[in-house]
Amino acid sequence: MKQKEIPYKIYLEESEMPKEWYNVRADMKNKPAPLLNPQTLQPMTAEELGAVFCDELVAQELNETDPYIAIPEEIRSFYKMYRPSPLVRAYCLEEKLDTPAKIYYKFEGNNTSGSHKLNSAIAQAYYAKKQGLKGVTTETGAGQWGTALSMACSYFDLDCKVYMVKVSYEQKPFRREVMRTYGASVTPSPSETTEIGRQILKEFPGTTGSLGCAISEAVETATTTEGYRYVLGSVLNQVLLHQSVIGLESKIAMDKYGIKPDMIIGCAGGGSNLGGLIAPFMGEKLRGEADYEFIAVEPASCPSLTRGRYVYDFCDTGKVCPLAKMYTLGSGFIPSANHAGGLRYHGMNPALSQMYEDGLLEARSVEQTSVFEAAEQFARVEGILPAPESSHAIRAAIDEALKCKETGEEKTILFGLTGTGYFDMVAYEKFHNGEMSDYIPTEEDLAKGFAGIPKIV
Amino acid sequence: MKQKEIPYKIYLEESEMPKEWYNVRADMKNKPAPLLNPQTLQPMTAEELGAVFCDELVAQELNETDPYIAIPEEIRSFYKMYRPSPLVRAYCLEEKLDTPAKIYYKFEGNNTSGSHKLNSAIAQAYYAKKQGLKGVTTETGAGQWGTALSMACSYFDLDCKVYMVKVSYEQKPFRREVMRTYGASVTPSPSETTEIGRQILKEFPGTTGSLGCAISEAVETATTTEGYRYVLGSVLNQVLLHQSVIGLESKIAMDKYGIKPDMIIGCAGGGSNLGGLIAPFMGEKLRGEADYEFIAVEPASCPSLTRGRYVYDFCDTGKVCPLAKMYTLGSGFIPSANHAGGLRYHGMNPALSQMYEDGLLEARSVEQTSVFEAAEQFARVEGILPAPESSHAIRAAIDEALKCKETGEEKTILFGLTGTGYFDMVAYEKFHNGEMSDYIPTEEDLAKGFAGIPKIV
Repeated sequence: MKQKEIPYKIYLEESEMPKEWYNVRADMKNKPAPLLNPQTLQPMTAEELGAVFCDELVAQELNETDPYIAIPEEIRSFYKMYRPSPLVRAYCLEEKLDTPAKIYYKFEGNNTSGSHKLNSAIAQAYYAKKQGLKGVTTETGAGQWGTALSMACSYFDLDCKVYMVKVSYEQKPFRREVMRTYGASVTPSPSETTEIGRQILKEFPGTTGSLGCAISEAVETATTTEGYRYVLGSVLNQVLLHQSVIGLESKIAMDKYGIKPDMIIGCAGGGSNLGGLIAPFMGEKLRGEADYEFIAVEPASCPSLTRGRYVYDFCDTGKVCPLAKMYTLGSGFIPSANHAGGLRYHGMNPALSQMYEDGLLEARSVEQTSVFEAAEQFARVEGILPAPESSHAIRAAIDEALKCKETGEEKTILFGLTGTGYFDMVAYEKFHNGEMSDYIPTEEDLAKGFAGIPKIV
Repeated sequence: MKQKEIPYKIYLEESEMPKEWYNVRADMKNKPAPLLNPQTLQPMTAEELGAVFCDELVAQELNETDPYIAIPEEIRSFYKMYRPSPLVRAYCLEEKLDTPAKIYYKFEGNNTSGSHKLNSAIAQAYYAKKQGLKGVTTETGAGQWGTALSMACSYFDLDCKVYMVKVSYEQKPFRREVMRTYGASVTPSPSETTEIGRQILKEFPGTTGSLGCAISEAVETATTTEGYRYVLGSVLNQVLLHQSVIGLESKIAMDKYGIKPDMIIGCAGGGSNLGGLIAPFMGEKLRGEADYEFIAVEPASCPSLTRGRYVYDFCDTGKVCPLAKMYTLGSGFIPSANHAGGLRYHGMNPALSQMYEDGLLEARSVEQTSVFEAAEQFARVEGILPAPESSHAIRAAIDEALKCKETGEEKTILFGLTGTGYFDMVAYEKFHNGEMSDYIPTEEDLAKGFAGIPKIV
């Protein structure tokens, strides 16, 4: 069949948008290992998880059997406000690279949160509302997840308490103000509002905070305030379930035009975007219906998959969340301060970790200067100024397209463009001024992180 | 005919996108008055204009006869990268307001420049390239226009020299870095690179600059550097011609679904968005084919149409550009420093000024606190955080929808959502902190501005 002429951007009709999320774990032969209670080292029960998370989300977290889960009507209505996101044919980039490769990207940045995080935020807010809760708590670093959650809570008239790492609260006031526009209360962490916050302030009076501390404050507030639960923007399997909307839309759009990608590339921090993008394609691979090459791209400064260990570890530096079996650098591992490109999470979603362990997924790491070079090149020819995180995938896509130029292969590449970099201009400024450097952890650096991993057989 | 069900967002197919701009002046009975040479007070000739502007753009500026002008293929290719922009049905806003009105908005913010300015920037860059020029110069305040021009020049590999008002260069570094990402050279104005800059620095050593000074530096550089011309992002008729793509796409989308707007609302600074949005609808009105209500919304602090005079005036505070007959507050008029909402231009596009004089167009002014209230309300229900400029139109659209609620009228309202406010969070922060105040110029304030208008009969 002759291919239809492919437009620059493929937008699905509303009627073509997915009505179900795809739960890739249902098709995995080797299931991801269960979350463990850090006290008992037994698998977390629904009841235990329900003290921290919403009931319906707990059910999704534990569901390894249903391949499809209906997207509630209210969430689908919200999706229609900013979705379908475009599947873009990168004609200009192809021309600039002079490559025979065909490059596509799924662009998730055309919404005020600036990224794909909104896909899960709205689902989590919906289930919280449905359960009759008053509000939710979360932590945020630079603010991408906090922004998405604020938007979602505003839509469902839920209270949203965000603990923002103090240094970001003070030095990156723009995202804070976006969150306030959506009615969230944003508290610099550590704060006087929690027991753990007060302790830390007493012990370290001048501290500028950390993500671990913000998580601890958010969890404490959720578990000690009537009608509140804690929500998380990545790492968990429920988040990957919601994010499958990215891959499903991509697949529907590609099928419509008879396009089959040879290679699917996503950046990987906690795994929410990568897992969502590849989900339905991985499903075909798991069921033996088709084959694809999947590539996870991570920063060389925080190489969870490429240099991490596949073991049980704490999900948070505060060690208050359940233990997960995953590729990890140790919850105490912190990338060098000169790392500007996001994706600084020490671990990786458990399902993706299992897929990587099973050889279903490749991983590679890239250095940040080359990531920003790719970002700038992409911005100039494709018109979109990408988030540093997304630019890891751009780097790998460009590298693959250049390989095709050498070999003459006409590969079809799909990558995830998770978001825009409008709130990351400080990092771009460093890059423009030649002040950006690369950092690769030494074996000693890694050993320190590994030392903090609990010994669980 | 029964209306089709209207989706949340209407995207045209690529094949439906306009292939010609619409030149509304061709259908005006009373043409806008010609630009005058400030020395001779005679109409500017093409030759005189050609010393400052590109030849093809001069031809467009002077063309009052051709209703349609073909959009060159290269520009249409670029448009396909970020257009068509969506025509959005504001279902959520309608529900929140509980109004029988049907509200639509044309959203121009889904591109990295963050606004509609890119529509004209790419056209101006194209004609500069076609003429074999090396580059263009311009000025920018907060940086929206400069960003759009940088993106356009990058695409056509043209040099782009932006003079950025020094206080913005220093205090608003984010847009500066976006421009640098696109390869523009951004110079804080006043600078040592021009005669006028050096003069001003000598006279006022500590000055933080002004838009007038930046214009003067950009024009001086364009006219004294081989292979350069000056480009402008608003006010000129050529800019409105390019921006007609907004209205044309809107009309095609509405016609496709059998929607006829009763009222079309746009914010008005220099007039580029308003003029572009209403153009094809105004054409129908001018030709007696249909009737629409057109509303220009301007800030109460800079009320060019509602309180200005229709006379010849300088287009720039530096008085280096041609004289235009327009509604003006005087080129020396500067809105109070507490004005955060953009649209601070003292005059108005000549064609729009003539339409207003002829009663084809209404105008109203709104105060900035109420503008930010509308912005926040809109952001929460429609998910898009709007630019302060765009929010003037939102304010008026909400007011009209609330009137419909009182009267029970089911009016169809279309407004222009020109851009996003991601780089305007400082203004939002003032609003959130209750530090925003309103300002309405007194008669004395206006008299000072009027005093600077040249006496030309």
